[in-house]
Amino acid sequence: MRLELVTIGSELLLGHTIDTNGAELGVALAAAGVTVTRRTTVADTPEAIREAVAEALARTGAVLTTGGLGPTRDDMTKAVVAALFEAPLAFDPALWDDLVARFARVGRVPSERNRSQAEVPAGATVLPNRWGTAPGLWLEGAPGLAILLPGVPSELRGLLRHEVAPRLAARAGAGRVTRSVVLRTTGIPESTLAERVGEVEEGLAPLSLAYLPGVTGVDLRLTAWSLPPGEAEARLAAGLALLRERAEAFAYAEGEGDLADVVLARCRASGRTLAVAESCTGGLLGARLTAIPGSSDVVLGGVIAYANALKTGVLNVPASLLAAHGAVSEPVALAMAQGARARTGAALGVAITGVAGPGGGSAEKPVGTVWIALAYAAGVEARRFVFHGDRGEVRARAAQSALDLVRRHLLAAVPRAGASED
Amino acid sequence: MRLELVTIGSELLLGHTIDTNGAELGVALAAAGVTVTRRTTVADTPEAIREAVAEALARTGAVLTTGGLGPTRDDMTKAVVAALFEAPLAFDPALWDDLVARFARVGRVPSERNRSQAEVPAGATVLPNRWGTAPGLWLEGAPGLAILLPGVPSELRGLLRHEVAPRLAARAGAGRVTRSVVLRTTGIPESTLAERVGEVEEGLAPLSLAYLPGVTGVDLRLTAWSLPPGEAEARLAAGLALLRERAEAFAYAEGEGDLADVVLARCRASGRTLAVAESCTGGLLGARLTAIPGSSDVVLGGVIAYANALKTGVLNVPASLLAAHGAVSEPVALAMAQGARARTGAALGVAITGVAGPGGGSAEKPVGTVWIALAYAAGVEARRFVFHGDRGEVRARAAQSALDLVRRHLLAAVPRAGASED
Repeated sequence: MRLELVTIGSELLLGHTIDTNGAELGVALAAAGVTVTRRTTVADTPEAIREAVAEALARTGAVLTTGGLGPTRDDMTKAVVAALFEAPLAFDPALWDDLVARFARVGRVPSERNRSQAEVPAGATVLPNRWGTAPGLWLEGAPGLAILLPGVPSELRGLLRHEVAPRLAARAGAGRVTRSVVLRTTGIPESTLAERVGEVEEGLAPLSLAYLPGVTGVDLRLTAWSLPPGEAEARLAAGLALLRERAEAFAYAEGEGDLADVVLARCRASGRTLAVAESCTGGLLGARLTAIPGSSDVVLGGVIAYANALKTGVLNVPASLLAAHGAVSEPVALAMAQGARARTGAALGVAITGVAGPGGGSAEKPVGTVWIALAYAAGVEARRFVFHGDRGEVRARAAQSALDLVRRHLLAAVPRAGASED
Repeated sequence: MRLELVTIGSELLLGHTIDTNGAELGVALAAAGVTVTRRTTVADTPEAIREAVAEALARTGAVLTTGGLGPTRDDMTKAVVAALFEAPLAFDPALWDDLVARFARVGRVPSERNRSQAEVPAGATVLPNRWGTAPGLWLEGAPGLAILLPGVPSELRGLLRHEVAPRLAARAGAGRVTRSVVLRTTGIPESTLAERVGEVEEGLAPLSLAYLPGVTGVDLRLTAWSLPPGEAEARLAAGLALLRERAEAFAYAEGEGDLADVVLARCRASGRTLAVAESCTGGLLGARLTAIPGSSDVVLGGVIAYANALKTGVLNVPASLLAAHGAVSEPVALAMAQGARARTGAALGVAITGVAGPGGGSAEKPVGTVWIALAYAAGVEARRFVFHGDRGEVRARAAQSALDLVRRHLLAAVPRAGASED
């Protein structure tokens, strides 16, 4: 099955918004067995929307639009597409009741402007939007199939997964699919990883392999192109096993797995609790850990010791250590980790202190210098890193490396084969 | 001057690559006075490229393509566009010498595959690429104007700034530019804002107004389309003043200004320091504040009091309050804010305690319920919110609302006109 995307929004053409929805849609539609043959972005004027949607339908017979379903005046996709399908808009009282109830739950009352959101083209299927106020629409008629989705990323994602992908997969039939798997690594440079993986790359055919370097590590993506589902699954599983073998302990998850999630699961499995002591990351490590639902059975909390007064006053870091070595030093990192553990009663205390930049660097401790320490019942350890990148990247790499230090510690706690320390 | 973009690459349609080039081009072209009327993304097959480029030229007379200029097999834009312009490709020895020299500098020798990179359509202008191996091309002929650029972001950016934008600005004439300004608001729903702004919307013409709702607030973008630079500036300034008047104190910044930055500047100006006490946000508020360079003169740090034991043990929240009211309550939020202030010696203590979900909700305190409190020398105050969205959104909205509570407090500390409390 072939389909075109039409993404609507002047902000996309003006470059004020990066079109992340397009990528999200591409992945989800490929997984559903649908080939996206073209993506067109137009301004939110009725003429531009009409032209793009009509052309896409004429070429491909199926179009999916994003954007232009909200209550403000710049939202007009629904009216334009309804006119193309000669399907008059009708007010749907049930949809309006839903909207009123949704607003009531957050203590608000919908305004007159919101009434247009309860209008539905004749014959259209309403795709319920549990993530926002504008429902999706599924229209079939003489021009073909039109699927209208909101442009807000979280709403689009929810509707795509729960309403659109299942319907399209059923329609596309049992045929061939394009599927990918991802192996996530951290702590190893892309070129080193490429050397290790290069030795088995021929064994991966006909899968394609892509290196996706990011701030917190390198992801490896294997793609099976247009294969029967069973064959795609089998080949991807075998390819993934080969990659895992080469990446050894640098691999921490598959798919979209988050290192924080891996760390929490390992802590939970071994009955350990965790506390943080953060200087240059200022709460980022805590935020990453607590972003995971259910983290409260592992994470007790911790201290954002941005000022030295908090390092001494709350974490009991001796002032003499700060005076002798500076805040960004091994002894201070060790004392912060021990202080987090002692202050909270957690099994593990993890500390970060560094120079995130852009200011504050010196010849001895350049911007990017970060000490990360881990305290546990049997002792305490620290590692020094020099991260490249801007302030945001240094902080993100520091939080990731702190998580990885915890993961490696918990790996070492059980017997394992083929792992190497970096 | 109007122009269409054609971005070429199967990886864009499959969603493996997010199209950041499109945004980069949109901003640079608008600044050069060029209106981008459409962006089309197609796979790297000759048929798809030919069709998209020919349609764009027929509609608009000017097209800029990205991608498909490298030496690998999937790169074919140049041959296809040359054929459309009936301009035969000819080998350019000078270009080849450049390429050989460039490879030599990194200790390599170009392969036979690279020879195609030295081929130029008859009559085309070569745009030298100092950032990579594939030069850009500028073709004019019967079909109109075609500008061919590589898809590698750093090469595209270099060619765009140094070769393309100056030529296009000259062509577009002394002329006219498309410029935008953005007013950022928070704490007011899109529909309420639209009602307020609607009353003056006619006064904004000929500027266009877009509502850009996000997790942390609604941005208003005003765009002046194709006006002389002076007139564009004057109209945007006047329009912005109108919007500011309607948005009142809900507006916190222009452009890409971050609320954390605004709060830090106001604290700094009034000589106040700040500490946080975070439960459900787990460090997110601290991370947002410390993401700003130079935040250390205002932010002392704080406590991530995720477990109740830390609320009592580190923040000195009375256990009796937790027992009587629960962790998500006004008295506990107030005590946390006071505790942060007392523990750190900061002028302002801001606290967040809530139910981020997906679990932990009840009829009385549904998921999304968040208490935010602010303690200062003269007292303490708290507000209850019920945020919608998933865990990540609830946390992001909570951190934003906490920052806004601080901003509002500091606004109230000086005389102001026309502001209203929400």
